[in-house]
Amino acid sequence: MAKGAQKLQIIPLGGLGEIGKNMTVIRVDDEILVIDSGLMFPDEDMLGIDLVIPDISYLIENKDKIKAIVLTHGHEDHIGALPYVLKKINVPVYGTRLTLGILEGRLKENGVDSSNLHSVMQGDIINVGCFSVGFIRVNHSIPDAVGLSIKTPVGMIVHTGDFKLDYTPIDGKMTDFRRFSDLGNRGVLVLMADSTNSEREGHTPSERTVGAAFDRAFHNARGRIIVATFSSNVHRIQQVIDTAVRYKRHVAVLGRSMVNVVNISLELGYITAPEGTIVDIDEIHNYRMEQMVIITTGSQGEPMSALTRMSMSDHRKVGIVPGDTVIISATPIPGNEKLVSKTIDNLMKLGANVIYGRNQGIHVSGHASREELKLMHNLVRPKFFIPVHGEYHHLVQHARLARELGMPKENIFISENGQILEFTRDKGQVAGKVTAGMVMVDGLGVGDVGNIVLRDRRQLSQDGILIVVVTMNKQTHRVVAGPDIVSRGFVYVRESEALMDEATARVQQALDRCEDEKVKEWAAIKSNVRDALGRYLFEKTRRRPMILPIIMEV
Amino acid sequence: MAKGAQKLQIIPLGGLGEIGKNMTVIRVDDEILVIDSGLMFPDEDMLGIDLVIPDISYLIENKDKIKAIVLTHGHEDHIGALPYVLKKINVPVYGTRLTLGILEGRLKENGVDSSNLHSVMQGDIINVGCFSVGFIRVNHSIPDAVGLSIKTPVGMIVHTGDFKLDYTPIDGKMTDFRRFSDLGNRGVLVLMADSTNSEREGHTPSERTVGAAFDRAFHNARGRIIVATFSSNVHRIQQVIDTAVRYKRHVAVLGRSMVNVVNISLELGYITAPEGTIVDIDEIHNYRMEQMVIITTGSQGEPMSALTRMSMSDHRKVGIVPGDTVIISATPIPGNEKLVSKTIDNLMKLGANVIYGRNQGIHVSGHASREELKLMHNLVRPKFFIPVHGEYHHLVQHARLARELGMPKENIFISENGQILEFTRDKGQVAGKVTAGMVMVDGLGVGDVGNIVLRDRRQLSQDGILIVVVTMNKQTHRVVAGPDIVSRGFVYVRESEALMDEATARVQQALDRCEDEKVKEWAAIKSNVRDALGRYLFEKTRRRPMILPIIMEV
Repeated sequence: MAKGAQKLQIIPLGGLGEIGKNMTVIRVDDEILVIDSGLMFPDEDMLGIDLVIPDISYLIENKDKIKAIVLTHGHEDHIGALPYVLKKINVPVYGTRLTLGILEGRLKENGVDSSNLHSVMQGDIINVGCFSVGFIRVNHSIPDAVGLSIKTPVGMIVHTGDFKLDYTPIDGKMTDFRRFSDLGNRGVLVLMADSTNSEREGHTPSERTVGAAFDRAFHNARGRIIVATFSSNVHRIQQVIDTAVRYKRHVAVLGRSMVNVVNISLELGYITAPEGTIVDIDEIHNYRMEQMVIITTGSQGEPMSALTRMSMSDHRKVGIVPGDTVIISATPIPGNEKLVSKTIDNLMKLGANVIYGRNQGIHVSGHASREELKLMHNLVRPKFFIPVHGEYHHLVQHARLARELGMPKENIFISENGQILEFTRDKGQVAGKVTAGMVMVDGLGVGDVGNIVLRDRRQLSQDGILIVVVTMNKQTHRVVAGPDIVSRGFVYVRESEALMDEATARVQQALDRCEDEKVKEWAAIKSNVRDALGRYLFEKTRRRPMILPIIMEV
Repeated sequence: MAKGAQKLQIIPLGGLGEIGKNMTVIRVDDEILVIDSGLMFPDEDMLGIDLVIPDISYLIENKDKIKAIVLTHGHEDHIGALPYVLKKINVPVYGTRLTLGILEGRLKENGVDSSNLHSVMQGDIINVGCFSVGFIRVNHSIPDAVGLSIKTPVGMIVHTGDFKLDYTPIDGKMTDFRRFSDLGNRGVLVLMADSTNSEREGHTPSERTVGAAFDRAFHNARGRIIVATFSSNVHRIQQVIDTAVRYKRHVAVLGRSMVNVVNISLELGYITAPEGTIVDIDEIHNYRMEQMVIITTGSQGEPMSALTRMSMSDHRKVGIVPGDTVIISATPIPGNEKLVSKTIDNLMKLGANVIYGRNQGIHVSGHASREELKLMHNLVRPKFFIPVHGEYHHLVQHARLARELGMPKENIFISENGQILEFTRDKGQVAGKVTAGMVMVDGLGVGDVGNIVLRDRRQLSQDGILIVVVTMNKQTHRVVAGPDIVSRGFVYVRESEALMDEATARVQQALDRCEDEKVKEWAAIKSNVRDALGRYLFEKTRRRPMILPIIMEV
């Protein structure tokens, strides 16, 4: 095929119109590059679901064409689906050291081989198939994050990854402005940029500002200090350690994921601490309260997390005592507000001084606000723009920002998962759809829970279930035993005996009617029972429990 | 009893340590006054529950002592439990006109007689038993709201109700500062004050500021305007009408509760509109898009509300078209963020310009922020202080505020529902507990859903249910029919046939073992079946569905 006729396709398989499960396909002819492979946490109406991953049917169909998966950073919403994806497709995975360090742990837990992971450095450029991929240093709420430059035969793509612009980063390593600027100078065909904070005016504060807030809190604390934050926020953890050292305190680490990340980060050099600073959680009793800091998980009020257990006096190793200072160094993710509030209340009731909330300076976002996004657009100056990473309203606001900066409307694409955007050197257009969507993971089951199962779980969760069992003679169709009614999640049976007795009577009447009218098909008999009982229960309770008639033949 | 020995008891039955179901008992000897009677919306883990009301066992036990219920305003969390409470105790209810207007509607829906409602005016003082109750005008997000002065033989109580200080209220009627100040001058024993916004620094903006934001939005709108807000926010609705009149638009009202409140408010004069401004929703097609404003419910993304239905192209009367401007004049209540986001996304996808979010000036709170609370404390200058209306952390922050103002720690009581606080003229102390808690309402059932039912609903919602039915001979204990397994909400059965076949085989083995080992008690057989099946399913799926063995005897 002549080079001029080549077409570049950009196909998001996740992360558009949603927060999470980020995954994007870059395709030129028969060569595919995949960016990220994240998971999403289930919505509240996905009852019993543990996590959600992208539908990768398209990748499985085209598995021979995939040259590599490249990763932007080590957050779950960018790498969390890999344990499932790598079971289906075996391709090389490229990422920075910390990203791969965290990923290896996940793969191990899931019994997935990690021999095909390839480590790169911020600044590296690799060649895979027709693509030349540059890993560009960016600031984010996890170290070793990168944006990507993807040189294709059709043109240059820039993908920011999740990013912010931090002029005073903890490790001194700033977002690589010059690289983005150079790319802009040389000409960028398509920019894909993080939209998470596209509704936020101004600049996102530097991670370093949190250090000042920690300093104030440590200065005022008389007893033990407990800091809860995201385990992946390695710079935050470093700041806790640094402040602890200044105030001559030791640090213990609590919570499975926190222990994992701290260990990997110490090993790889992303966290440093003077000899003797970090002590084992089992040794904290050797120190006085005012000599200790505990770093822990649970900043989102997660029910099984260390902080939540402490708040309920249910942790094996640490009990909250009056005089403890608890710093919740995070803002609740939408949906978690009530859990976080409850945790704060319980900690306060145990006598802790809890430092929380937006105005305390104890948390900053990892995503660029509008002014930072404007700078990025101005550095990269792309021909086409696709806002990514965000719910629809985030994408719309990011698109508006691009228009405010002068980009023509027809060069901006608010896309959706599965939509093919096709680009030549001077044109972009929608060019069809591929299979995309969500696959729900429940325990060991990947995709075996679908809409029917969820609908049943929803009905069961609202009003419970009544099971009506009748044993009938195969030949005569006469009732041999029953009807027996068993209910769960409907009413407290001991206090509703009259209701249940009358319900049984109604079923009996329905069965009698069937016998009188010589209804013989099991399905018809069941349907009669279901209707009669459902009507009676709705009239009496205004509830619609699931009703499950079972006929046993003898 | 000598007057000096009389004791004043203040017993919250709801609203402390929670947002909602506000209800407080004031008791002196054998005379009881009740303040408010509200409901609460269920937490997410209260599956299938419609609403929650206070446990009023204490009131029922003491019903002969209750002199009256006095109401502060017409919000659900202050009057919503009355349809249930008045079925159990028949006492006079005092409230302002709009409060009673809204309440009457609720009572009628529930078939409760409303002949014992007595209307008062802001500024009135009534005598009930030994209590002299003054109704003090306050600003809030509903008109006709009052705080209360309650003169008792022991001393004066001031209860702020829900309030804010609005220097430019829509109806020109300000919080009655002078009255609070007069009470302070004459000496107040106990202050109970609204803690909802005790974490918010500064002042809550005036309701009038929203009018300016509406004006901007109306000015820019080219097509139809749809405004979603709380139906009880009558001043907000008035501002929509006023702005509509200025821009020569007609107003239609949509959503059951919105229609109810607008009708009551028009009738009682709390809303005014020039003749012909308000038109029936069925007549909107007689007007051009740019001549219309629709006021609707659904600002919280409630699944059945008018706005949510419109956003899903599922409303019978109004379909969103490109060019519509939708103003969401509310902030999401914690827990509703995702629903609101989804509604915004859906509206945007239909082409609407959606105005939403904290920075648009289109919503203000109805509760006093910290500086306003400080003014209230300084006006009333009470001897004792009880922060009310809020989760524990709100109460703690309000208590801190009182301490900052110089109140001694021992004069501040962070109380809890059911706790008796007892006051003399110079002393306050905790003096025991009464029954308090929550009663869950599910359909017509009040209190028939308890922890066991909820626990079952939770298990059912997570992993579904498997029912195992076996028919056995009463004498021989041999299996006559079955085992049959039916599942709901567990796996999609058609794709899990092998799993279900093997599950049935495991049950059969368990039954065989019981027969071999001559296990005869039904309970023991069931327990064996449950264990064998549960183990197998957990091993294969890592799920723990409810397993319900049923044995039919023949």
